[in-house]
Amino acid sequence: MNAEIVSVGTELLLGQIVDTHAPVMAQILAGAGIGCTRRATIGDNWDRLVGALREALERADVLVTIGGLGPTVDDLTRDAIAAALDDELETVPEMEEKLRKFFASRNIAMSDSILRQAQKPKSARLIDNPNGTAPGLICEKDGKVVIALPGPKGEFDPMAHGPVREFLARLQGGGVIHSRTLRVVGMGESHVEDRIRELMDAENPTVAPYAHTGEVHLRITARAADVAEANRMLDPVEQEIRAALGRNLYGVDDTTLEAAVIGLLRDRGETIAVAESMSGGALGARLTSVAGSSSAFVGGAIVYTAAAKQSALGVSDAVLGEHGPVSAETAEAMAVGARERFGATYALAITGNAGPDADVDGKPVGLVYLALAGPNWVRTEQQRYRGIREDIRRRATQQALFMLREAVLP
Amino acid sequence: MNAEIVSVGTELLLGQIVDTHAPVMAQILAGAGIGCTRRATIGDNWDRLVGALREALERADVLVTIGGLGPTVDDLTRDAIAAALDDELETVPEMEEKLRKFFASRNIAMSDSILRQAQKPKSARLIDNPNGTAPGLICEKDGKVVIALPGPKGEFDPMAHGPVREFLARLQGGGVIHSRTLRVVGMGESHVEDRIRELMDAENPTVAPYAHTGEVHLRITARAADVAEANRMLDPVEQEIRAALGRNLYGVDDTTLEAAVIGLLRDRGETIAVAESMSGGALGARLTSVAGSSSAFVGGAIVYTAAAKQSALGVSDAVLGEHGPVSAETAEAMAVGARERFGATYALAITGNAGPDADVDGKPVGLVYLALAGPNWVRTEQQRYRGIREDIRRRATQQALFMLREAVLP
Repeated sequence: MNAEIVSVGTELLLGQIVDTHAPVMAQILAGAGIGCTRRATIGDNWDRLVGALREALERADVLVTIGGLGPTVDDLTRDAIAAALDDELETVPEMEEKLRKFFASRNIAMSDSILRQAQKPKSARLIDNPNGTAPGLICEKDGKVVIALPGPKGEFDPMAHGPVREFLARLQGGGVIHSRTLRVVGMGESHVEDRIRELMDAENPTVAPYAHTGEVHLRITARAADVAEANRMLDPVEQEIRAALGRNLYGVDDTTLEAAVIGLLRDRGETIAVAESMSGGALGARLTSVAGSSSAFVGGAIVYTAAAKQSALGVSDAVLGEHGPVSAETAEAMAVGARERFGATYALAITGNAGPDADVDGKPVGLVYLALAGPNWVRTEQQRYRGIREDIRRRATQQALFMLREAVLP
Repeated sequence: MNAEIVSVGTELLLGQIVDTHAPVMAQILAGAGIGCTRRATIGDNWDRLVGALREALERADVLVTIGGLGPTVDDLTRDAIAAALDDELETVPEMEEKLRKFFASRNIAMSDSILRQAQKPKSARLIDNPNGTAPGLICEKDGKVVIALPGPKGEFDPMAHGPVREFLARLQGGGVIHSRTLRVVGMGESHVEDRIRELMDAENPTVAPYAHTGEVHLRITARAADVAEANRMLDPVEQEIRAALGRNLYGVDDTTLEAAVIGLLRDRGETIAVAESMSGGALGARLTSVAGSSSAFVGGAIVYTAAAKQSALGVSDAVLGEHGPVSAETAEAMAVGARERFGATYALAITGNAGPDADVDGKPVGLVYLALAGPNWVRTEQQRYRGIREDIRRRATQQALFMLREAVLP
């Protein structure tokens, strides 16, 4: 059984708003064991909308529409579904009555177009909408299912997560598509793939890599009767991937690298401080985005100027004068200074040129020095990143967290 | 002339990530006067992808694909475009050479699959990718145009806003849909709407509000023969909105609040330091995300523990003991300490409870104290925010920047 989703609205189509409902709907379908094979976005245009719905119904067993159920002349979805199903529209008297009462109780004059919301295709039943006037629809005709949901978030969410999810579970009669994400750092996408090539040819569970800035996510997905069975199928695949990737696999599902690092430190009763030049606080912000980070994160200094590097971290005139602010020596002095002044087990330092100025003190865009100070030792690294300012800063904080994790891991 | 957009990737299709590129692309097409009539999302599946591209090419003059240009076996877009256009793939020797040099210069072993990125359909020319290894494509064949862009944001954005925008402008040669975004802080969406209600009924230019965390964006859009004429139509509308909203309108288009604040400080030859507890570096990270921020941003301290507040900023035992870390008094002492120690014109301090722990030192989730220290004065504010940890931290840095802007504005 497969599904398609059609999002309706000119504002969506022209990119004036981002479609966050369709991803939610795709996940709900997957949770019911129904694969989503295509999504489309269509404007408020009758011919194009009816055409897109007819095409989708030729390919898919289940079609979900989002948006276009409101009362204005732009809202075409209800009528378009009837047309695509070769069905007739009929008025639901109880719904008309409900609408009249709703507007009367609020002393709002009701325009006639409001009553369009009391109509439905004959093959449809209504989904109650406690948060708005337009009900949703579930149509079953000629072996096809069409589900229509309203666009406003406060109306879409309860219907999608409630009655629609339940309907889909009954429709499919059991069976789920369940995924797990394994997160990998310190290896490029093509290298990850090289190590797990055979697993990627499997059909169930499937394994698929996705590249993110500074890390790779491997999504493993099983089709099974229920979540417990899916997990039993996913476990050995995860074990094989762990064996192939070793310590580069740092977390599962929503565990970010910063959360993994905070967790390691907390388990060991150790702490971290930061010394940030180029990253300007972004490393501290990532570490403290983790709930409960105060058990391991102490604080740090943001030192954009040479004077700040000296006064807040004790970086000497000699180091700054001889090697400049973008150097391994300055990174090292920043890390050592932060570790001492903040009394932490470790301190991470970042200095570099994130651009866009072609050079800072003679150092090119993308050149970054990182340092990690621990008890009686300091490690430094030079990196050269490409990309825009945002990417360079992100990669630098990612590498800093990776260095710390490597040092702390048994 | 009309266009369709096809976003490629199973992760997108299944809703594991939200598609923010397609809306950007739709806006760029509109800016070139090319209406987008349909968008689709297809997974990493050869038959479905080639099928969707062929269908789109039957309907549209211009087809833009996003994603699937990388080096792995899942990346099918390049080959699928060649198939849909009945074109052949060829290797571009200079591109192959470039890829080999790139990997050699980084001492990374290059897997063979990487070299797929040096291929292109015969009808295509390459779009340079300064931020990654996969070039984009512009194919022109049989009266159709196919543009292929990579998925990573740091690669997509520069190509889409640069060479692709320019190509589309030349292609269309007449008529534009041109927008301007006016950014408003310190006022809720419904208040903004109340003040500009009449403008919102106009047809050309149109005015539409969009709510974001801690700010509201007003998008004003004109249809005109060219950008200059569109701008002449937008100017008086912008003036009316400026008159209605006053100093709450802080910037236009891509000017973030942090960029507006850095610009104001730079113009006045003044500087800012930060003192961050709850925000953990996020305020510094926002300020330094602005290119050229070193002209106004000095540095600061991240002080998560009481000891750090004392040692790095000189917050006294008495203040911490009597009022606790989450208090107006501690915020004030942090701001004063940061201003003195970092030698800045102003210093901003943030302390509070971002959750999820129900209370910190007896203070509830969402309670935040902000302080701004200037020459011989300090202002403090208490705020109570709702929402998740991320939202509370975002709203706190937003309010801090708003306080600074209010103090600095003439």
